[in-house]
Amino acid sequence: MTRRQLLQRRYKLLGKNAPLFYDEPLTIVKGEDVWLTDDNGKRYLDVYNNVPNVGHCHPHVVSALSTQAAQLNIHTRYLHETILDYAEKLTATLDDTLSSIFFTCSGSEANEIALRIARNHSGQRGIICTNATYHGNTAAVNALATIFNDGKPAAPDVKAVEYPCRYHPPAGVAADALADYYADQVAEAIAEFVDEGIGFAGLLFCPIFANEGVPDVPDGYLQKVANYVRAAGGTLIFDEVQSAFGRTGAMWAHDIAAVTPDILTLGKPMGNGHPLAAAICRQDLCDEFRDTNMYFNTFGGNPVSCAVGLAVLEVIEQENLLENVKTVSQYLRQGLLDLQKQYNLIGDVRNSGLFFAVELVDDPHSKAPAVGVTRQIVNQMKERGVLISRIGKHDNILKLRPPISFSTQHADLLLDNLQQTIQQNAV
Amino acid sequence: MTRRQLLQRRYKLLGKNAPLFYDEPLTIVKGEDVWLTDDNGKRYLDVYNNVPNVGHCHPHVVSALSTQAAQLNIHTRYLHETILDYAEKLTATLDDTLSSIFFTCSGSEANEIALRIARNHSGQRGIICTNATYHGNTAAVNALATIFNDGKPAAPDVKAVEYPCRYHPPAGVAADALADYYADQVAEAIAEFVDEGIGFAGLLFCPIFANEGVPDVPDGYLQKVANYVRAAGGTLIFDEVQSAFGRTGAMWAHDIAAVTPDILTLGKPMGNGHPLAAAICRQDLCDEFRDTNMYFNTFGGNPVSCAVGLAVLEVIEQENLLENVKTVSQYLRQGLLDLQKQYNLIGDVRNSGLFFAVELVDDPHSKAPAVGVTRQIVNQMKERGVLISRIGKHDNILKLRPPISFSTQHADLLLDNLQQTIQQNAV
Repeated sequence: MTRRQLLQRRYKLLGKNAPLFYDEPLTIVKGEDVWLTDDNGKRYLDVYNNVPNVGHCHPHVVSALSTQAAQLNIHTRYLHETILDYAEKLTATLDDTLSSIFFTCSGSEANEIALRIARNHSGQRGIICTNATYHGNTAAVNALATIFNDGKPAAPDVKAVEYPCRYHPPAGVAADALADYYADQVAEAIAEFVDEGIGFAGLLFCPIFANEGVPDVPDGYLQKVANYVRAAGGTLIFDEVQSAFGRTGAMWAHDIAAVTPDILTLGKPMGNGHPLAAAICRQDLCDEFRDTNMYFNTFGGNPVSCAVGLAVLEVIEQENLLENVKTVSQYLRQGLLDLQKQYNLIGDVRNSGLFFAVELVDDPHSKAPAVGVTRQIVNQMKERGVLISRIGKHDNILKLRPPISFSTQHADLLLDNLQQTIQQNAV
Repeated sequence: MTRRQLLQRRYKLLGKNAPLFYDEPLTIVKGEDVWLTDDNGKRYLDVYNNVPNVGHCHPHVVSALSTQAAQLNIHTRYLHETILDYAEKLTATLDDTLSSIFFTCSGSEANEIALRIARNHSGQRGIICTNATYHGNTAAVNALATIFNDGKPAAPDVKAVEYPCRYHPPAGVAADALADYYADQVAEAIAEFVDEGIGFAGLLFCPIFANEGVPDVPDGYLQKVANYVRAAGGTLIFDEVQSAFGRTGAMWAHDIAAVTPDILTLGKPMGNGHPLAAAICRQDLCDEFRDTNMYFNTFGGNPVSCAVGLAVLEVIEQENLLENVKTVSQYLRQGLLDLQKQYNLIGDVRNSGLFFAVELVDDPHSKAPAVGVTRQIVNQMKERGVLISRIGKHDNILKLRPPISFSTQHADLLLDNLQQTIQQNAV
């Protein structure tokens, strides 16, 4: 079936604006480790997909899925050992205070339950997020989707603060004053919520600010934010739907920030593509919430999902993927910094483990976003057989975020192609 | 591992109030067709579970899952044929107006998108539901969970009307006036929303009122409701998360009611246990929503979920399950009516296909709920090897809702055990 025919069927069935990648969309038919194959048999190096975290169709994960699906797949109102084994293995890698789990099917559902817990605990409504973020697609969570709404939240009980960023600092603020400059906005938002009678419930941040473009965060910022939130009796929620399970080179991004949240939300890579997500919180928050709210999730925590989640953790251990992320991300970072020296187009290279943001600018001094070129490069890289994407409020940041089984050889292939593509677009 | 040990681990990891069935919870380790096996090897006839709709671990569904999971599992921003094949097969069984699909991971997510579409379309907030219902666990959808909140919605922009019921009619209303009595409450709620300045967005009902206890609905009620909703410019949403995919003997419960909604939401049985759900709506509603809202669901509509959904539809066809539901539900209904003649405890027998509600009362005239006995019967049936549950605001209604591959032989086994258990509890 031709692309045109597929597109026509898709427009009718899924809607004209159902999001698609690339000016000429790809039809993908097969995945294996870091490789995707299209309907013409062309192979692409996948430097975009973070959901198949341990590699597309990883045999250990597929085997766990298939075996358990043939044995039993049922809700959690009967006892089952796998959910407990998985929950124990998950929480064993976390601070002792993060011990109680709500299993869900998506990151949106995980953030939903986190917001419900924070609001239930405080009896207040106010939630703080950043001004260039996205945390999910349900009504309550979508009110925080400032990235699609000019930086503004979509509800009066949500306030957005500027995300911290060393590359685009506010005029007149010294580098060593940045952490306070940004953190003080959190204190101000809390005070405003109180003044307005909305009250303050909590703050929801991605600890690596993934959707904001993985900015370099001023030292001490997250600690200051946590102090303000807790001093005001609020719940600190970290959305690690994108940053967990080794993405950063640590198991959890908040390990690197050295700040433990009250609620941690997980999703995308948790089941390597299988719909599996969770909110993990302090036991007192869980008990308090469950005492007064009936919460049940039909599919959440079923034996198949838990067997898959367990298999993902096993692969991360057995294949030593945290070490791999550290090694390969350093190697790739160096390669990108070398490219930056050659091309003024590359304004900034940032990363947290294997989540890279390469900001393209028309001029390294003004830092004006190179919007058109960025789009062109993403499409040209696809033609060359390398899948990347873009991010940021101007969509001028290359997003490089491969499965964490990515090797230095894959990094070389990426760097070669990127160099040639940028060369082609250099004036 | 003993039950006590499992419970201790579970309390710590999932919270003390994470819902569990039965006074002495079961540890289930295996499922096959309509049978579940516990950790002692004891087999149970499953007359409760509607999620493994075509039978636990159906080989055709498991095979589709395993095959596709080994081939490719990825989001929908690339083209893929399976999602289109599935969407076409699904919509082919629906009214032509229901042609655009949002794939999600859960019924909650499906109802979330339905509420967002209705509120987006009308520019108003007011949603009508019944006073003994539940539609999901997200904040916006949970505001409709009147069954856990004494019949009251949890938000000012939701109003609850009495669910229609011929077994407990309001005093002084003649049987032939019931449809108007109940439907007029919808008209009143719409008028109140308008008066209050909240405005009216839409109405969300399960067309068989499953959580309300599958009441016998006065003839013409749903048509009258639909007329009021549409006359007021509202969106008619049917939640068929429990009633679709053959449960009623028709593919869709609204086929029986002969009322087509503007949005249809699906979930539980859609993937036979795999987290798969959807909202299906008119194309103009989809396009209008997508024009002004970025909606993306990471796992929704992935190739594995769609392969599973397709396999479920194939099994329903190949095994002629709609016919099976019609035959077996008539047979079971007759058996339950015969039991009712023997025992005053059985106040009412209602069903919509293989979703049965057997209301237990202390006295057939006062219809006072037999709460304690109902609980006892559910637990005693479990000891006998038959899994059932209970429902309704007093929890005095036996819920019988097996996989739709249930046979007349299975019905006999259920009826024999139920007769003996009721006999045991008869005074």
